[in-house]
Amino acid sequence: MTQRPGIVVTGASGRMGQMLIRTITASDKARLVGAVERAGHDWIGADLGEAMGGAALGIKVTDDPLEAFAPAQAVIDFTAPEATLEFATLTAQARAVHVIGTTGMTEEQIARLEPAARHAVIVRAGNMSLGVNLLVQLTRKVAAALEEDFDIEVIEAHHRHKVDAPSGTALMLGEAAAEGRGVALADVSDRGRDGITGARTSGAIGFSAVRGGDIVGEHDVLFAGEGERVVLRHVATDRAIFARGALRAALWGQGKAPGHYSMVDVLGL
Amino acid sequence: MTQRPGIVVTGASGRMGQMLIRTITASDKARLVGAVERAGHDWIGADLGEAMGGAALGIKVTDDPLEAFAPAQAVIDFTAPEATLEFATLTAQARAVHVIGTTGMTEEQIARLEPAARHAVIVRAGNMSLGVNLLVQLTRKVAAALEEDFDIEVIEAHHRHKVDAPSGTALMLGEAAAEGRGVALADVSDRGRDGITGARTSGAIGFSAVRGGDIVGEHDVLFAGEGERVVLRHVATDRAIFARGALRAALWGQGKAPGHYSMVDVLGL
Amino acid sequence: MTQRPGIVVTGASGRMGQMLIRTITASDKARLVGAVERAGHDWIGADLGEAMGGAALGIKVTDDPLEAFAPAQAVIDFTAPEATLEFATLTAQARAVHVIGTTGMTEEQIARLEPAARHAVIVRAGNMSLGVNLLVQLTRKVAAALEEDFDIEVIEAHHRHKVDAPSGTALMLGEAAAEGRGVALADVSDRGRDGITGARTSGAIGFSAVRGGDIVGEHDVLFAGEGERVVLRHVATDRAIFARGALRAALWGQGKAPGHYSMVDVLGL
Amino acid sequence: MTQRPGIVVTGASGRMGQMLIRTITASDKARLVGAVERAGHDWIGADLGEAMGGAALGIKVTDDPLEAFAPAQAVIDFTAPEATLEFATLTAQARAVHVIGTTGMTEEQIARLEPAARHAVIVRAGNMSLGVNLLVQLTRKVAAALEEDFDIEVIEAHHRHKVDAPSGTALMLGEAAAEGRGVALADVSDRGRDGITGARTSGAIGFSAVRGGDIVGEHDVLFAGEGERVVLRHVATDRAIFARGALRAALWGQGKAPGHYSMVDVLGL
Repeated sequence: MTQRPGIVVTGASGRMGQMLIRTITASDKARLVGAVERAGHDWIGADLGEAMGGAALGIKVTDDPLEAFAPAQAVIDFTAPEATLEFATLTAQARAVHVIGTTGMTEEQIARLEPAARHAVIVRAGNMSLGVNLLVQLTRKVAAALEEDFDIEVIEAHHRHKVDAPSGTALMLGEAAAEGRGVALADVSDRGRDGITGARTSGAIGFSAVRGGDIVGEHDVLFAGEGERVVLRHVATDRAIFARGALRAALWGQGKAPGHYSMVDVLGL
Repeated sequence: MTQRPGIVVTGASGRMGQMLIRTITASDKARLVGAVERAGHDWIGADLGEAMGGAALGIKVTDDPLEAFAPAQAVIDFTAPEATLEFATLTAQARAVHVIGTTGMTEEQIARLEPAARHAVIVRAGNMSLGVNLLVQLTRKVAAALEEDFDIEVIEAHHRHKVDAPSGTALMLGEAAAEGRGVALADVSDRGRDGITGARTSGAIGFSAVRGGDIVGEHDVLFAGEGERVVLRHVATDRAIFARGALRAALWGQGKAPGHYSMVDVLGL
Repeated sequence: MTQRPGIVVTGASGRMGQMLIRTITASDKARLVGAVERAGHDWIGADLGEAMGGAALGIKVTDDPLEAFAPAQAVIDFTAPEATLEFATLTAQARAVHVIGTTGMTEEQIARLEPAARHAVIVRAGNMSLGVNLLVQLTRKVAAALEEDFDIEVIEAHHRHKVDAPSGTALMLGEAAAEGRGVALADVSDRGRDGITGARTSGAIGFSAVRGGDIVGEHDVLFAGEGERVVLRHVATDRAIFARGALRAALWGQGKAPGHYSMVDVLGL
Repeated sequence: MTQRPGIVVTGASGRMGQMLIRTITASDKARLVGAVERAGHDWIGADLGEAMGGAALGIKVTDDPLEAFAPAQAVIDFTAPEATLEFATLTAQARAVHVIGTTGMTEEQIARLEPAARHAVIVRAGNMSLGVNLLVQLTRKVAAALEEDFDIEVIEAHHRHKVDAPSGTALMLGEAAAEGRGVALADVSDRGRDGITGARTSGAIGFSAVRGGDIVGEHDVLFAGEGERVVLRHVATDRAIFARGALRAALWGQGKAPGHYSMVDVLGL
């Protein structure tokens, strides 16, 4: 008898955590088997469903990841870098798939995931949506196809609560454009344009950040030439796409060889 | 001594003809060596530059294509289907490259180009812009990568004088989307949506046509899923892009083996 | 002691009904005091909160509007025309404000609201969002300010389940544009553009309908002239805006003189 | 006998000067009677039409504005601040209308126009297009109608040669938004967003500048709330709109009382 994989969500009380829980409980391809929060959180010991303001789910929120991960086939984790590193070790011990949506990890922190990736499947991505990962690949190809007489600009818009600019996804798109052209983004990046800037530098990749309201996330990659423009655009309207992408990664990882994978692998792009 | 290829423009007095003449005379990679109009046209016998309201160019407009094509390495032709078929024969006799931007040719008329294509290079495209040809290819790939839960819509906008809808380029994009999905456009095309339409048919490819002002040409291919969208967009702001694309085709064709080529070949996409 | 107005929601089990209930219960300016469904509906007699899959709210769903409306200061009603006419009579008897978001009412049905409007406040609108009502007014003004050499097009996009085209809101915008120009929309409306249409008629107001994914609702009013364009655009990303607008109307109507009002009155635009 | 007003263009050899000359000579409502360039310029003494690479126009380019302005009913001037101040004095002496499209004038320089404005009509605007001036007014009204829970962002895009950011027109739009809200733009302006910015400040007016290709000029004013957005958008595709606006101002000013006017007066908005 095959069974639906059991999944644990970390950071269960957060906006993304609750979205993951709703996505998993609504799916007929997976089961929710645990929910983790940090020690001292209000929700510890409570029924997860009731803590979320709904009907009981029969799952107690715990601050003990080791216990929570033991019966799991996958852990979905959108928390913070140091917590994610701890979870990676425990997830590998449980031989579960670790889906990491945590942002802001340094190169050094990413390197520290490697021991875990030798024993278990890790899928990590700055953005788990199908559309964004597709856009990254298109950006690389178009940047390679068009010459430097097409100027590249990445324009993104997010809600008023976002604290950094440009978005991590905008930087992913900029990196892809730079790769397509065979240059380093750091050498051509043009950010925070303001005042007497002088004419645009040939080969520059520009970034603009719009902030307002509750915009979930929109990204345009503009290639502007003489007399014509190409725009590659992604619009996210529901954070559930990130949760659905994470769940898809958790299911995809079942039975795969240990290693550190990206959403491009999962999506087969 | 290598020399810049000599080019003849047919339909010299038309909007596209004059654009071609300006583009060629401004280029340092080609020379304008002739200009053809139909018998009886006002401009026959006049100096081309003066007929265009500017300084003399030293080229007399002629209604004799045979004479005009003899010294040419290429003929650029945005006229009408039957004229283009006649020019194809004469261009092949002159062993010149025939760049065809003429629209509205039937399958039968296109087949009649084949004898000429056995002796000379023909480059033919419904749209000569770099960006549109790139968009066609991206559309095919994205349609293949995304499943049917992404709805495809092609939205185009053109000036108030355009007499048909959707545009030929919109149909090219729709064809590419259908190819990417492995279906026939005729089976899934959804045009002229109005009134009580019922819910959208799964797998349909929709078309919308906006008309107004002097819009040169804008095309959006929308892939709309749950919670996210991808848009591939092309904006033409200057008809010169079609002239520059045609000139690029004329130069590319020099020394190539006889055959019937498309802009995808020229652009190396 | 002043108290928060008590509100009843009709059509409580529908998508809009549930949105209204969540909006009212989350507000600190109003109290939910009743929920009505049609006789025979599953939810009749159940606790409203539990029927919605959450915690109990202490309100039983009823099929008796007379009883439900008695203690109410307002009734919010997004149902169907004949039900709304019945509710209007009962709401007027209760001297409560009747907020009507029901669509598809005929002129004759609207006229039948007048007796109720002599005894109570009715606020009725095809679209309760602040932004759309603002857009309608801007459209009227811009159409009046610009002459006929600016072509007007209304382009709307909605989710794949929508069964009619253009949207009711698009038609409201078209009506406003026609009013601004002093013409009747019926005389200038250009819908379902497809095939050999001929050049655009001067003075026409065109409509395009895009359908795909889960787009909540987007409307563009384009004024396209020679060398420039003005676009007035509204994007709805959350149906809660309609619920919030309805709640705002219910609160605004408290203490107002009996009459038939629109959202323009409520919003003070 | 009424006659078409005679117009002189200053800065005749520049991109805007040549656009003005083509617009005036193509108009049947005005006559071109002079063309001024700075002393030492190549074109001085040449026939204007021939200097522009076309047929002779019978007008010699001069470096003597006093002589050129004498027979004129209007002077159209897109030059530099100090030149414009000199031209204002001479235009007032000639009792001609002075249309000023010169940008970058300081408050002090603008004040120095007042003596001339006591004797002649001056029309001055940062942007002479009908659509932009309309957008400025709409922006003021919408900013006044919507409360601070709608975040305001101005996003503009221009060609790669533009040397400053944000554009003067973007700043005009920002000023209009600030006026609508009753605040000073300097107190709420948020420019050059980059890095760890923190959450958006309530009440801020943000600016973004996109640069690429040959984009003539596009401006969006975004009002982003919870669940909905309103966008006011202007797209310029042809610099001729600025020339046509300037010509319209020159014709409008004939017979008006001396004073310092704006395009809002001319357009009757």
